[in-house]
Amino acid sequence: MAIRYELLKTCKQSGARLGRLHTPHGTVETPVFMPVGTQATVKTMSPEELKEMGSSIILSNTYHLFLRPGHEIVRDAGGLHRFMNWDGAVLTDSGGFQVFSLSSLRKITEEGVSFRSHLSGEPLFISPEKSIEIQNALGADIIMAFDECPPYPAEREYVKTSMDRTYRWLERCQKAHRRPEEQALFGIVQGGMYRDLREESVRQITSVDLPGYAIGGLSVGEPKDLMYEALEYTTPHLPVDKPRYLMGVGSPDALVEGVLRGIDMFDCVLPTRIARNGTTMTSQGRLVVRNAKYARDYSPLDPACDCYTCRNYSRAYLRHLIKAEETFGIRLTTYHNLYFLLRLMEQVRAAIREDRLLDFRRTFFRQYYGSDEGAPTRNF
Amino acid sequence: MAIRYELLKTCKQSGARLGRLHTPHGTVETPVFMPVGTQATVKTMSPEELKEMGSSIILSNTYHLFLRPGHEIVRDAGGLHRFMNWDGAVLTDSGGFQVFSLSSLRKITEEGVSFRSHLSGEPLFISPEKSIEIQNALGADIIMAFDECPPYPAEREYVKTSMDRTYRWLERCQKAHRRPEEQALFGIVQGGMYRDLREESVRQITSVDLPGYAIGGLSVGEPKDLMYEALEYTTPHLPVDKPRYLMGVGSPDALVEGVLRGIDMFDCVLPTRIARNGTTMTSQGRLVVRNAKYARDYSPLDPACDCYTCRNYSRAYLRHLIKAEETFGIRLTTYHNLYFLLRLMEQVRAAIREDRLLDFRRTFFRQYYGSDEGAPTRNF
Repeated sequence: MAIRYELLKTCKQSGARLGRLHTPHGTVETPVFMPVGTQATVKTMSPEELKEMGSSIILSNTYHLFLRPGHEIVRDAGGLHRFMNWDGAVLTDSGGFQVFSLSSLRKITEEGVSFRSHLSGEPLFISPEKSIEIQNALGADIIMAFDECPPYPAEREYVKTSMDRTYRWLERCQKAHRRPEEQALFGIVQGGMYRDLREESVRQITSVDLPGYAIGGLSVGEPKDLMYEALEYTTPHLPVDKPRYLMGVGSPDALVEGVLRGIDMFDCVLPTRIARNGTTMTSQGRLVVRNAKYARDYSPLDPACDCYTCRNYSRAYLRHLIKAEETFGIRLTTYHNLYFLLRLMEQVRAAIREDRLLDFRRTFFRQYYGSDEGAPTRNF
Repeated sequence: MAIRYELLKTCKQSGARLGRLHTPHGTVETPVFMPVGTQATVKTMSPEELKEMGSSIILSNTYHLFLRPGHEIVRDAGGLHRFMNWDGAVLTDSGGFQVFSLSSLRKITEEGVSFRSHLSGEPLFISPEKSIEIQNALGADIIMAFDECPPYPAEREYVKTSMDRTYRWLERCQKAHRRPEEQALFGIVQGGMYRDLREESVRQITSVDLPGYAIGGLSVGEPKDLMYEALEYTTPHLPVDKPRYLMGVGSPDALVEGVLRGIDMFDCVLPTRIARNGTTMTSQGRLVVRNAKYARDYSPLDPACDCYTCRNYSRAYLRHLIKAEETFGIRLTTYHNLYFLLRLMEQVRAAIREDRLLDFRRTFFRQYYGSDEGAPTRNF
């Protein structure tokens, strides 16, 4: 097997899991947040900076790399790790989500999905076999099954049809996978917000013996309560000896709530995307450093943070750079936001180790959201 | 005095100068190339990266900082060094050049220049006194006199009038300067491409006792031969015990030719600007890494270079990042181009030390431009 999951303990206070994911490119302490490097780069960051802030695994997007530069070019470079000079672990998604969210003129059949490139308009086709072929070429440590992620809200009938097809596609993915000793294939549970469908999807997906399982189709616009509920009736049915990955989730509250519901892995563009607009996550909550009120504020972004940005630069300087559209400003806010989430997960792991994750949740939510209950009404 | 120039030796083969410029923020080995950090940041680079590649002094633009964030904000941050977390030396220009090249609705009078901000359209006014007030607030180690830089070509009459005013403005700058013990004021020789006017301007400007002198009004569109000629009838009249700064010059050939004609300091946006478009300087000459032919080229940008970029990344990866408009690609090409020019100046200094700068020039030009004579017909 390419990877091995080691469950170290569960939190006595909450049931959250502390573990280690051993990959061909190092060990990942879980629960873990994975920064997103869509186009074979975590926007504005160097691999050394990612290492320095404590990233052990990053995600990259199959759809984007298939379109540009093309998976053969990455393969011939020696794979994604070598191409981008990253010796930590990598996970690639299947391309499914981006085909549905970015491309145009999609047509889904049992065989796969026809669509037009959002870059060139070129007609393209991705099937489960093609997705795995691309991911085998990219060479990530963890690769994802090709699935369909229905939007929210979606009719039960649609979700059911799509979910059944996702299961059939999973079997084709497994069969097409050429490098199981080097790359771990994860299946993806779907089923929308329908409890019985989620339960059925878990049965389907876990009937295929795989090194890990993901939960897809959440964080697609539904209220957070619904997402947490869906986790509650899904994760208990996942095997305890395999890692569980909640796709596309990265707000501070959802990370903590996800861990409380048994999730081990998360990814999200949130910290890097909002950073580019001058929005940051701090120990006191969200802070939009581009706001005029920080023009003469010479204090660090987050006085409680010891990251490179907070040790060396003022809010006034960050605001200036962001207003002046200087890339270095985005480097600094990106660094800080990723550091913030990686530190949060470090604190979460410590809290599990010490059986006090519910206490940590209360303290953290009070500080970050100003409420014991977290922030179901705010985005992040 | 804020700075002290130490002439170590002149090259026996060429007369080029090897020296040291002692500043309140460290010693600068000359001849030196100064990277440009227009808006209090060298685009995409961190201060640590600039240090690592060997930068000892950078330039920042008074006009831009006056407009945004405003010089009082920089002053209240503790000055430019502290604001941008740079503990090396800094030189600020006077704002004159940018007022003429960027702003609109300019009106020049004896008192100063009225213009509209290129950002907000706001009507503004900069006089010699105002330029020095701004530069005193920014706190650079070297500050420049407020001058007018005539375009090329320009009528003799116009150049003469402007040059005489630049001299009168220099006297006002010197009088307005409030921090001569911490900041060294340089005067700027003008006179266009007219030999007698250049000679007269040198007499005027050097009649004011200052810690250094600059040559302005070159590299403004004239053929390189004319620029070299202008240097030949200007630098011999400058005092040998003061540093000479040729403004706005940074192509490899012009750096070497400038040093051969007695110049100690240079600045230019060329290496950082072309990097943003995927154009690089290598030991074999200019290389446009965004070109399609590098799509599958897995060799380093410059196999003869040992910079961070060339040690870790391929042309194929750089091309991918630049095509995909990923900032990290621009970081990598910017790093390389600055490293290239800083290494070039290091080689130039070694050649002066060993009395072989003409030999170095021939070898370097042959390698870079494919010709012993350099590249008078190419831009860089």
